[in-house]
Amino acid sequence: MIRPLSLWGRGKGLALALALLASPALADGLIDNANGYTFDGKGQLVRFNGLLIDDQGKVARLLDRDDKRPEKLDFRLDARGRTVVPGLIDAHGHVMGLGEAALSLDLSGTNSLAEAQAALRAYAADRPTPPWIRGRGWNQERWGLGRFPTAADIDAITPGRPVVLDRVDGHALLANTAAMAAAGITAATKDPAGGRIERDAKGKPTGVFVDAAQELIRKAVPPMLPRDRDAALAKAQEILLGFGITAIADMGTSGEDWLVMRRAGDAGRLRVRIISYAGGIPTLLAVAGTGPTPWLYDGRLRMIGVKLYDDGALGSRGAWLKAPYADAPGQTGLSFLDDTKLRNLMSRAAMDGFQTAVHAIGDAANAQVLDAIDELAATYKGDRRWRIEHAQIIDPADLSRFAKHGVVASMQPVHQTSDRLMAEARLGQARLGGAYAWKAMLDNKVPLAFGSDAPVESPNPFPALAAAVSRQDAAGQPPGGWQPQQSVTLAEAFRAFTATAAYAGFAEDRIGTLTPGHMADFLILDRDIFTAGIADLRTARPLETWIGGKRAWTAPQGGQASSN
Amino acid sequence: MIRPLSLWGRGKGLALALALLASPALADGLIDNANGYTFDGKGQLVRFNGLLIDDQGKVARLLDRDDKRPEKLDFRLDARGRTVVPGLIDAHGHVMGLGEAALSLDLSGTNSLAEAQAALRAYAADRPTPPWIRGRGWNQERWGLGRFPTAADIDAITPGRPVVLDRVDGHALLANTAAMAAAGITAATKDPAGGRIERDAKGKPTGVFVDAAQELIRKAVPPMLPRDRDAALAKAQEILLGFGITAIADMGTSGEDWLVMRRAGDAGRLRVRIISYAGGIPTLLAVAGTGPTPWLYDGRLRMIGVKLYDDGALGSRGAWLKAPYADAPGQTGLSFLDDTKLRNLMSRAAMDGFQTAVHAIGDAANAQVLDAIDELAATYKGDRRWRIEHAQIIDPADLSRFAKHGVVASMQPVHQTSDRLMAEARLGQARLGGAYAWKAMLDNKVPLAFGSDAPVESPNPFPALAAAVSRQDAAGQPPGGWQPQQSVTLAEAFRAFTATAAYAGFAEDRIGTLTPGHMADFLILDRDIFTAGIADLRTARPLETWIGGKRAWTAPQGGQASSN
Repeated sequence: MIRPLSLWGRGKGLALALALLASPALADGLIDNANGYTFDGKGQLVRFNGLLIDDQGKVARLLDRDDKRPEKLDFRLDARGRTVVPGLIDAHGHVMGLGEAALSLDLSGTNSLAEAQAALRAYAADRPTPPWIRGRGWNQERWGLGRFPTAADIDAITPGRPVVLDRVDGHALLANTAAMAAAGITAATKDPAGGRIERDAKGKPTGVFVDAAQELIRKAVPPMLPRDRDAALAKAQEILLGFGITAIADMGTSGEDWLVMRRAGDAGRLRVRIISYAGGIPTLLAVAGTGPTPWLYDGRLRMIGVKLYDDGALGSRGAWLKAPYADAPGQTGLSFLDDTKLRNLMSRAAMDGFQTAVHAIGDAANAQVLDAIDELAATYKGDRRWRIEHAQIIDPADLSRFAKHGVVASMQPVHQTSDRLMAEARLGQARLGGAYAWKAMLDNKVPLAFGSDAPVESPNPFPALAAAVSRQDAAGQPPGGWQPQQSVTLAEAFRAFTATAAYAGFAEDRIGTLTPGHMADFLILDRDIFTAGIADLRTARPLETWIGGKRAWTAPQGGQASSN
Repeated sequence: MIRPLSLWGRGKGLALALALLASPALADGLIDNANGYTFDGKGQLVRFNGLLIDDQGKVARLLDRDDKRPEKLDFRLDARGRTVVPGLIDAHGHVMGLGEAALSLDLSGTNSLAEAQAALRAYAADRPTPPWIRGRGWNQERWGLGRFPTAADIDAITPGRPVVLDRVDGHALLANTAAMAAAGITAATKDPAGGRIERDAKGKPTGVFVDAAQELIRKAVPPMLPRDRDAALAKAQEILLGFGITAIADMGTSGEDWLVMRRAGDAGRLRVRIISYAGGIPTLLAVAGTGPTPWLYDGRLRMIGVKLYDDGALGSRGAWLKAPYADAPGQTGLSFLDDTKLRNLMSRAAMDGFQTAVHAIGDAANAQVLDAIDELAATYKGDRRWRIEHAQIIDPADLSRFAKHGVVASMQPVHQTSDRLMAEARLGQARLGGAYAWKAMLDNKVPLAFGSDAPVESPNPFPALAAAVSRQDAAGQPPGGWQPQQSVTLAEAFRAFTATAAYAGFAEDRIGTLTPGHMADFLILDRDIFTAGIADLRTARPLETWIGGKRAWTAPQGGQASSN
């Protein structure tokens, strides 16, 4: 065994590396003949040919082509020139939500009612239990149906089994007759305030429940069974590993989520590393108590802080803006927390050494959080790494304020490509200078961490890397990229998805780079992403995902990773 | 290291023991010259002189005086003839409640208002935080006060700090002016249904809130801080270890409690072994999911089942009786669960292999649970160890039914001595034949586990052992013992507090007896309880408490254990 030396983490270890070379018999594993990339202590991309792993699953040493290989190894893998990179770290995701969404029926790709009916039939046949069927993603406009779907459209497909299908926008759901019966819905049920029940000519509910009326059905849906929660976590991990995500910041862990994660840890079923941010102060205090938890389960789980929400989202005009929405004069969005409440919540976490990660999308929300940090930083000194999640719309005058207290900008490249047209409508051309402003963050020396916001977007980081360097969506739109001055280099984007994402979670001493003493979390890729064009970058996939020096995931035969 | 051999647990290991004797150099520790007692595989009390401990903290071997001692030992403790016994296991306690009660102000020993005022002053001076002061145990009758105490009686003692003091019976509380102000209580506050606010001649609340009115104050008390919860768990463990309790069944673990326990486990602060029964099905499923958790933290924590409540208590006439209360004609107590609901809850736990522990005090409640077990045992076969907690008042006709499906009677000896006069009043002489019927349980081959119900009673097991053999309270009342035909021998009582308490929690393969391969959890006592008289038994104390082969607690100098 090669004992990890903590001082190696800063790139000072050349002499020690040479010293260790004298006792190669202690090394346990070698990934050899790799086209390897990682970052050095200065954040510069560096190359390696061999990756030596110790018996603790940590990086023992990086080897050049000419370095002598140890003679005694427990295993040796010939990468045959394949590209090897550090495992990617998703700085902002929702682990249980990802798994739950993946296990429910996905109708977002259906182009007709008939396609949706077929998908429901197949899904139900595959899953005889639990009785209730949940799904999402239908859109009667896309179907060209000319009307809302009805319970009658789906009743015959799953006799006796309640079905609840969310519309693509989450503002309506379709329930079948069994679900309505379970919820006690009759013609006598009244529309609730803020909601509407679709009805036939005789006043009988037809199956669609709009906005607040959805709750009439949702409250009847049984809570998830423990085995389904366990399955959701397992599914989420399988998806993440298949996309090369070896660690993820879980943004808003509930108490229930935490217990599912611990159960998995206790049973040795935690595969991906999870950096947990509690979904609110009560959960934070109940779980972690008086300070961040230690790293649990061999570095697989840690609760380090709290996720707070300061405003809504841009699409629903909930993002809190300094000036009114361009497409809704007089509206400036939703401020969830006043100055005092925001400071009190952040303070409650910070006083016990917890990190805060505040959702702020609009420029007013971002300014409010920056103001709060300005004030709190005077009390809570030291290395705090205040995080702003999304940081989507920034007043250019505020961009330089992030760096002042080392605020981390935790951003999601794919949101830019998804939101582009909507952002133009909401903000108007004059306010786009600080929108999704990745390059401006880097120029201002702001730690920039990238993530997916899965399941809102796919957790696949390769399309995100492509978006980051091109400001173009998967179809290559718009030509030349949207606000292309905010694009970053691939090395910068990759660092935001690895080293800085680790830094954002106080984990840069163990993950994010392949550095002696750090965890041997790495990917063997199907192509060299650093020499690939945008289209090839976007479709890159891991062949193998390794965590802690062990192979955690292998692409299905043929080298094609799962696309789920 | 001596590897534990699981087949030793059944007393079959003599040949193997002799074989191991050939390699004594592997042993790590020896408690020598002990006046040792434990139980053999048949539940018979056996003696030993030396206790050999392996490097996993398990019992390697028991030695007679003439057995050769290993030559190489990491440590050797000369017990100098002191009595060494297995650690005691409390089969029914409330760990967090014990700690919380111990950290609050205890007025139960005060004999006057002046004494209580002095106690409050001292308590507040010792604890500048948290601002709110909680206490309990006052009794204006015992004080000879001739009236209820008032806020004015205590306002000057803790200026500005809210104080809430529960009456000894929990049916009233005293709040000071600061607490009433925080709760928004004014002369205009109305008495709630089922409650009464004591008032002066002008209608102004004087500080005492009776029954349902207590909630008006309690809802204003801030939730416990994480550090106070952590402190409560630490305090509970310190108390338990000081009384020689090395493991405890926590009856009704809340989700919050569980998180506190895990936090302690993660930080290496779990000292006592806790066998957890969730406080209801939702908590059980959220925490443990699809089956009992593994033993966590080196055998310190496991959630194995659920605690359910089938009726109330005898004192408040909540115990559900087959015939009316002798002192309240027409009343038969409270049935909390109908037959169907009880079966459904037990079934939900049993279907995933969880154990059920049902609180049943009255004879009707006990019969209902036995009926349910009769039915459920047909579906849920195998070794289920259905538990009935308290099993206080049993229809003699039902006594033989416990053994049928191996139902465990989990009983608390001190309840008998505390309840004696009240039980006679509630039940009348004719119904005492199946009351606190420990001997009848043993005669019927029912597994009998003993516990304390702490903090309702002291967790000190030695007065409980004395009560079990004498049916007398600490004052030796009544002469000859109450219903003395139900007393048990000390060996029987001790087995109920060790081997059978372990069996009741599916832990007899690791704790409860000093058997090779089991955990080395043991006590060095200040006297030989098996030769002591009742009074000496009652005041026995551990000098040292060992858990997992390590000294976990030592009596304060002078050999006097803490009496807290």
